[in-house]
Amino acid sequence: MLKRHTTAVCLVSALALMGGAAKANDELLKLQTDANEWVMPAGDYANHRHSTLGQITAANVKDLRPVWTFSTGVLRGHEGAPLVIGDVMYVHAPFPNTVFALDLNNNGKILWKYQPNQDPNVIPVMCCDTVNRGVAYGDGKIILDQADATVVALDAKTGQVVWSVKNGDPKIGETMTSAPFIVKDKVIVGISGGEFGVQGRVTAYSLKDGHQLWKAYSEGPDDQILFDPEKTTVLGKPVGKNSSLATWKGDQWKIGGGATWGWYSYDPKTNLMYYGTGNPSTWNPHQRPGDNKWSMSIIARDVDTGVAKWVYQMTPHDEWDYDGINEMILADIDVMGKPTHALVHFDRNGFAYTLDRDTGALLVAEKYDPAVNWANKVDLKTGLPERVAQYSTEKEDHNVKGICPAALGSKDEQPASFDPKTGLFYVPTNHVCMDYDPFQVSYTAGQPYVGSTLSMYPGPGGNLGNFIAWDAGKGKIVWSDKEPFSVWSGALTTDGGVAFYGTLEGYLKAVDVKTGAELYKFKTPSGIIGNVMTYTHGGKQYVAVLSGVGGWAGIGMAAGLTKSTDGLGAVGAYEQLNNYTQLGGVLTVFALP
Amino acid sequence: MLKRHTTAVCLVSALALMGGAAKANDELLKLQTDANEWVMPAGDYANHRHSTLGQITAANVKDLRPVWTFSTGVLRGHEGAPLVIGDVMYVHAPFPNTVFALDLNNNGKILWKYQPNQDPNVIPVMCCDTVNRGVAYGDGKIILDQADATVVALDAKTGQVVWSVKNGDPKIGETMTSAPFIVKDKVIVGISGGEFGVQGRVTAYSLKDGHQLWKAYSEGPDDQILFDPEKTTVLGKPVGKNSSLATWKGDQWKIGGGATWGWYSYDPKTNLMYYGTGNPSTWNPHQRPGDNKWSMSIIARDVDTGVAKWVYQMTPHDEWDYDGINEMILADIDVMGKPTHALVHFDRNGFAYTLDRDTGALLVAEKYDPAVNWANKVDLKTGLPERVAQYSTEKEDHNVKGICPAALGSKDEQPASFDPKTGLFYVPTNHVCMDYDPFQVSYTAGQPYVGSTLSMYPGPGGNLGNFIAWDAGKGKIVWSDKEPFSVWSGALTTDGGVAFYGTLEGYLKAVDVKTGAELYKFKTPSGIIGNVMTYTHGGKQYVAVLSGVGGWAGIGMAAGLTKSTDGLGAVGAYEQLNNYTQLGGVLTVFALP
Repeated sequence: MLKRHTTAVCLVSALALMGGAAKANDELLKLQTDANEWVMPAGDYANHRHSTLGQITAANVKDLRPVWTFSTGVLRGHEGAPLVIGDVMYVHAPFPNTVFALDLNNNGKILWKYQPNQDPNVIPVMCCDTVNRGVAYGDGKIILDQADATVVALDAKTGQVVWSVKNGDPKIGETMTSAPFIVKDKVIVGISGGEFGVQGRVTAYSLKDGHQLWKAYSEGPDDQILFDPEKTTVLGKPVGKNSSLATWKGDQWKIGGGATWGWYSYDPKTNLMYYGTGNPSTWNPHQRPGDNKWSMSIIARDVDTGVAKWVYQMTPHDEWDYDGINEMILADIDVMGKPTHALVHFDRNGFAYTLDRDTGALLVAEKYDPAVNWANKVDLKTGLPERVAQYSTEKEDHNVKGICPAALGSKDEQPASFDPKTGLFYVPTNHVCMDYDPFQVSYTAGQPYVGSTLSMYPGPGGNLGNFIAWDAGKGKIVWSDKEPFSVWSGALTTDGGVAFYGTLEGYLKAVDVKTGAELYKFKTPSGIIGNVMTYTHGGKQYVAVLSGVGGWAGIGMAAGLTKSTDGLGAVGAYEQLNNYTQLGGVLTVFALP
Repeated sequence: MLKRHTTAVCLVSALALMGGAAKANDELLKLQTDANEWVMPAGDYANHRHSTLGQITAANVKDLRPVWTFSTGVLRGHEGAPLVIGDVMYVHAPFPNTVFALDLNNNGKILWKYQPNQDPNVIPVMCCDTVNRGVAYGDGKIILDQADATVVALDAKTGQVVWSVKNGDPKIGETMTSAPFIVKDKVIVGISGGEFGVQGRVTAYSLKDGHQLWKAYSEGPDDQILFDPEKTTVLGKPVGKNSSLATWKGDQWKIGGGATWGWYSYDPKTNLMYYGTGNPSTWNPHQRPGDNKWSMSIIARDVDTGVAKWVYQMTPHDEWDYDGINEMILADIDVMGKPTHALVHFDRNGFAYTLDRDTGALLVAEKYDPAVNWANKVDLKTGLPERVAQYSTEKEDHNVKGICPAALGSKDEQPASFDPKTGLFYVPTNHVCMDYDPFQVSYTAGQPYVGSTLSMYPGPGGNLGNFIAWDAGKGKIVWSDKEPFSVWSGALTTDGGVAFYGTLEGYLKAVDVKTGAELYKFKTPSGIIGNVMTYTHGGKQYVAVLSGVGGWAGIGMAAGLTKSTDGLGAVGAYEQLNNYTQLGGVLTVFALP
């Protein structure tokens, strides 16, 4: 117990002496394995969202209760999770993106507060609420992606700005909502704005001073997307010259979307980072013939050079906004009986993909919600989905009904958890279908470039979500817990045999990893779209989550919209939420007595 | 346990059959004695804020923990407390004064929500944050005083508006922040605006349809103040003809203040209601010679006619904004050894007054904070304070330093509790002093009519508050718990031997009624300026409180003010609050495991 404190103190002292790129990387590689801390948004580089802490167990979790709470002072949707490093918790908030350092020795007393002075004109160019998915830590700095596309490095001890850099321009619809990702000497960031015709990209900045190291677009010529025609592969074969350009009409790739606002992962053994690219712009597929590569793709890149090792496009020529940004979970599991360096990805399109993360070989692709109907299956050889013609939205001004999943996917950004002990994935899912009515839209910088009217509603059975356990080696649901609303909260599993997640009504829930049986629930102040995390302090295990309803599912409440097709079609589906919860950002910290 | 449910159900059925004035009164007289409900803001007509529930005791309160929470979706200060009637909790919020009916059978699911559409121009004419102190219940209706001075009656079952009436005009600075008070067939309401030169008054409306029954001003001719020159008494003697007019220069009484925004109490045995009147306008005493009657007074009125039975002015010709609106607590106690129908009042001016509530005789007047220095004592015969010349603010443009208490008083609106078992009063107090610099101000309708620049700071010892136990029969502090900030939360005592209160940092605290020893604390999401209440549901005792920092003490945070003399002088004193908490309105409901 005291041991951990000593460790934390030693780390701080060591940091003060170190500084420098390799050292910062060593620090994070080490800290991500220390279950006492929660040093990066997903807990580790592999995006496991799993903790080896086991004080809170399936047997005693019923006794969990809040021990302290903290209001962020900000309304609207609170996505992401706090970090814990040593005795300090770092909490972020949606626009205006306040960041707090809270003292764990004193029930969350505010050690410092950073509040950027951002132009509120950024709000109308944020498609799906003014969310932010958290800060990153490295080399004594806290890194924040501001809504206005400024990346800021704060001194972790004082909150003072160390450096800041502009990563985009809100005037052309470029904003930031994702958490930065720190690897080695680099801060790696994405961009939001698929509904405004951005040219999506990932950019690496120096952790030390913020200068740009490399930038890799999602679409465009090879020198912009950092693809090597010979060495970058797709399903094991060289991708060839200008693989992206050939799949776009004219210059459309310049406003082609492929935003990069999801979660990132990293495998230190191969030095590869993994992420997904978003939907092509516009949402009217008739306007952009071709496969629109490399939107809707999983990309593996060398973290030092940015050059792509492999790529796989899940939804060529997207017709449904099946934005491919969901997280890649790196797990060494048996796939069809064979030990595999796997990458597991629960895509918006309703298929869960298992690939060999070293080679990009496609091993499994199965529906993780039986309601999925736009495609029958995915051909593992060609990698192509077998589409169902009736759900094509290719014809303009034709309202296609009953497409499952809806645009917000069988899962959106809410990250899943991998439990190495059970070998299963715990996935917060949506169970929502839609009508999709595409129309001609012209591009105007900074204006919505959507081109479709959507209407969403619950899937078969009338519920809007499920929390499921998934066997990624076999491509099968192990168990599924029905939820009235989408589970828009990141899951956490622990060695205590418990999976945690939040609900849109505001419940923090704990279920048995083996059976899905509900073991505990507590109604937090507002709907939960944040991600559950855990840490120790003074030797005791704590579980924490941000509540604060909003995000795409809660956009009606967050932005005060009432027309059912507003909020890109989400308002109608989630109307009943108004009967359960109200806005308000609050951190709740739980522990056993 | 089931018994209570049955009772609640029967009550509802009975109500449906009854209707009508006398019946509504019977209902409230009965419900206020039922500890399972919390049917009016103070729990009962006597303003005891005491519950006979005793499941939560000094021995087991350490095990208390939150069981569910609810965000109101509103930032800024949350004063007051929810009501509980049957299986429903009624929760209010500051501007825009949303009211929620929450289902206690379902962790606070929203049964209905009422959100008035109010002109935001009311906000600048609210002196001390956009607070509201709660709703009242009677005859199947929930009554709300809106900020814009509209009184609204809602159907308790549906939230539909039954009637509404304009009680004032925000354009001349008239707003409403207090809770309505329901007695018999009447809704009795006050008015805010002492800093805008309102003519304070109490108005009685019909509970059935909202028509006006009587109106009694704080100053003016007898027919406006409803004083009977012969029958209305002051310290046992007839008050005489036009007792108010004679104490004002010219027509100044028409903009003379004496607002009525505090808590009301009622004694069914004598049919008298009790309340205090606020400061005379302006805060520059040089501009308004005379005693400025009946500002700063305790008034007892017949609830049917509105005519005053007796009056007592605590601070004639106020020089410090010692706004006399604090609650009157009706308690049958020994005063100097003699059983007495007492009225106990902790005034802003730092003196605690004990009077005979039937006759208005002044029995005890002692300082409840030893720091009080503007007067040495109160002469019990004349009722006059013995002022200390050095703290007079009569001279314009002269900054008088070191006055204690500050304008926000040794206590403000935060109500005290009376525990019949100990016979003691539990008082949340301020310990704040000030510099006061009066200047000439001219009256313009709807503009601040303050006329003094204030600067506030902690009293001797450096703390800003204390939570004290007070013997009102002897006029002595029994014990005092030091608090770093003012205790701006209403206290609750219970037959479990526990006193509860909230702190501005956000702690709900439980202390031993006998010793003041701290037994439990929990950090709620935001600073607490709400009042603690208790009830049962399913036979189990719950304790609930609204957090949400703001009010006068928290006006810096609530309104984003940073200049130390802003917020009528409060901003500087409470600057450190920024290190402990942020805005956010959340109800937290506690219970034992």
